[in-house]
Amino acid sequence: MGTTDRIKAVAEKVIKTKKNGDNVIVVVSAMSGETNRLVGLAQEMQVYPKPREMDVLLSTGEQVTIALLCMAIEEIGFPTRSYTGGQVRILTDNSHTKARIEEIDTDSIQADLATGKIVVVAGFQGISEDGHITTLGRGGSDTTAVALAAALKASECQIFTDVDGVYTTDPRVEPRAKRLDRITFEEMLEMASLGSKVLQIRAVEFAGKYNVPLRVLSTFEQGEGTLITYEDETMEQALISGIAFNRDEAKVTIEGVPDEPGIASKIVGPIADANIEVDMIIQNVAEDVTADFTFTVHRNDFKKAYSILQEIRDTLGARRVTGDENIVKVSLVGVGMRSHAGIASTMFKALAAEGINIRMISTSEIKISVVVDEKYLELAVRTLHEAFDLTDRAYD
Amino acid sequence: MGTTDRIKAVAEKVIKTKKNGDNVIVVVSAMSGETNRLVGLAQEMQVYPKPREMDVLLSTGEQVTIALLCMAIEEIGFPTRSYTGGQVRILTDNSHTKARIEEIDTDSIQADLATGKIVVVAGFQGISEDGHITTLGRGGSDTTAVALAAALKASECQIFTDVDGVYTTDPRVEPRAKRLDRITFEEMLEMASLGSKVLQIRAVEFAGKYNVPLRVLSTFEQGEGTLITYEDETMEQALISGIAFNRDEAKVTIEGVPDEPGIASKIVGPIADANIEVDMIIQNVAEDVTADFTFTVHRNDFKKAYSILQEIRDTLGARRVTGDENIVKVSLVGVGMRSHAGIASTMFKALAAEGINIRMISTSEIKISVVVDEKYLELAVRTLHEAFDLTDRAYD
Repeated sequence: MGTTDRIKAVAEKVIKTKKNGDNVIVVVSAMSGETNRLVGLAQEMQVYPKPREMDVLLSTGEQVTIALLCMAIEEIGFPTRSYTGGQVRILTDNSHTKARIEEIDTDSIQADLATGKIVVVAGFQGISEDGHITTLGRGGSDTTAVALAAALKASECQIFTDVDGVYTTDPRVEPRAKRLDRITFEEMLEMASLGSKVLQIRAVEFAGKYNVPLRVLSTFEQGEGTLITYEDETMEQALISGIAFNRDEAKVTIEGVPDEPGIASKIVGPIADANIEVDMIIQNVAEDVTADFTFTVHRNDFKKAYSILQEIRDTLGARRVTGDENIVKVSLVGVGMRSHAGIASTMFKALAAEGINIRMISTSEIKISVVVDEKYLELAVRTLHEAFDLTDRAYD
Repeated sequence: MGTTDRIKAVAEKVIKTKKNGDNVIVVVSAMSGETNRLVGLAQEMQVYPKPREMDVLLSTGEQVTIALLCMAIEEIGFPTRSYTGGQVRILTDNSHTKARIEEIDTDSIQADLATGKIVVVAGFQGISEDGHITTLGRGGSDTTAVALAAALKASECQIFTDVDGVYTTDPRVEPRAKRLDRITFEEMLEMASLGSKVLQIRAVEFAGKYNVPLRVLSTFEQGEGTLITYEDETMEQALISGIAFNRDEAKVTIEGVPDEPGIASKIVGPIADANIEVDMIIQNVAEDVTADFTFTVHRNDFKKAYSILQEIRDTLGARRVTGDENIVKVSLVGVGMRSHAGIASTMFKALAAEGINIRMISTSEIKISVVVDEKYLELAVRTLHEAFDLTDRAYD
């Protein structure tokens, strides 16, 4: 939710859906900038703001939006009813600022829907068994929407965003990127975790778990958006759904480590202890029976990881530590990979033809990721977009 | 509640009281400017914002403050617990934006106090039997504080304001005005309704009804403030407690009305129908057996009242309508009046000595009000302050 204009735009969308004869429940987030404003106030008060009070504070953001959206809808002439998380009774555990939904009571909402009301629910928030206000953490409003859709067995959960759907890749990098009509939960999860920022991973996981069809739509533009569902056997399956990439990567290497049992944990252990998340890990054994370990970390953690490895080098008697902050990860994602060989080979050939050197490779059942020098990012994405014919592809 | 600095100042005050060994419950209002900001957002959404949603919206103001104040107190090292109106269970009727408190459940608060916690409650808000969020309307936070004090049988209810107590009159008009150590509920009610803006009338009424001693204090300054209680027989009672005045007055007169039964209601009825509140009313019968009616209204209603009287003049065949927008009301207030004659005569003599012409007079058991030309306001207040020796007076 952005400015008041945005709330009015949502009111129009909601009424359009209602006029189509569907019952509508709208889950809202805080207005743009509001959460940051509240966090700023909290930081003026307490160095480490108390999580319970942080939830009391932040939950007001969505409460403001439910009231305003109801007013905007009523102004156009449709009856509404707003609900805070506690009023619905979205029951969560007691983990303030990162609570998990345990149960949703839909009785009151269903009674309102039965009388023709448009129901507006504050996302991101719930209530604990003891009556404390809780919040769900990042992506919380999307999670609320999916959980409500599941509890009410809704036919579809629509997520309104700044973009009009999920694209084969970021249109700022490849202007010919194509909006996908459909994508599977698994693909969306890979896309999200690989750096595509359309939806929060947690909401997608939740939707997949409870089999709630998700549709990503634009708040301001028209269009069908992108439907995220389980794989449908009747639909023709594309090889590749999209190309995700992540600029926030850096890699570090420790060379000449004695190749003996337990060595990996001696290296990765201290990194994990420093709260640094490791993404890709590669180990290869050289001829002199020492090993080289390479792994990628978030670019913000590069310096810390590098200096930890230098300490380990001294302890283990390894040869040397090297690092590179100027790398990116580019990934092909598609459930079609499962049944088609040769994807990797096509990928590597296309990159080689453009002189792009691959530094690391990692694969899973439905994705192939490569690490390349940062300067090649745009070229690599466009090359792969072309090589896998994503521009012309259509599901329907 | 003002800025974040103000919240920190309140935290210091609260902890000081706690250190004195008293249990503390703090009732807070929204931060300065917040309510206006929210009302502005509502008006962007709906021409006449729906009262139910207005309450959902406005109640976030106090919810923000309870969280921030708890954080500020915890930062200094004292345990807290915040409560929204609904969490306390401040049960109200269903009159959104002007709800009345029906019942307060103090169990949870008392349990928290027993474990040494400082309890922070959102003022101005409650919850209806059906779980809807309600607000109490103007002065609501003071009312919440008094109601909680009554329910918990607190020894005192302290109201922190911009001023350090109740004064004999407005110090901006009479710099020698003296802070009162004590004042009775009745006097405070008269002072409040006559234009002294320290406390909301409703909170004072409520405190009087449930016999909760109120103390008006400054948020930023030190001092004992002013205690508002029932009349104490052991204390020496001053004749006059203070001088209130009101600049928002205007008067209208309809002259030469036939003096017959029912004529007053024919005049005041149409005024009331137009939602204009009438304050003082005077009727005098002239020798020609027609009557003149004069009454005062809020200055904003002057033009409307004047034109209504002109219509009535035509209907009733009255002589003419006159009016004056440049008048003020000055009032002496004091329970001591009850037992002392001569107050009025001293008042009139003092004003006459300064050449101040009295336009209207109205009295009640503990007050005498006069209407004078606006230009004499300051002179009249200072003259009476001197005449009744308010500068030197002290209760203790």
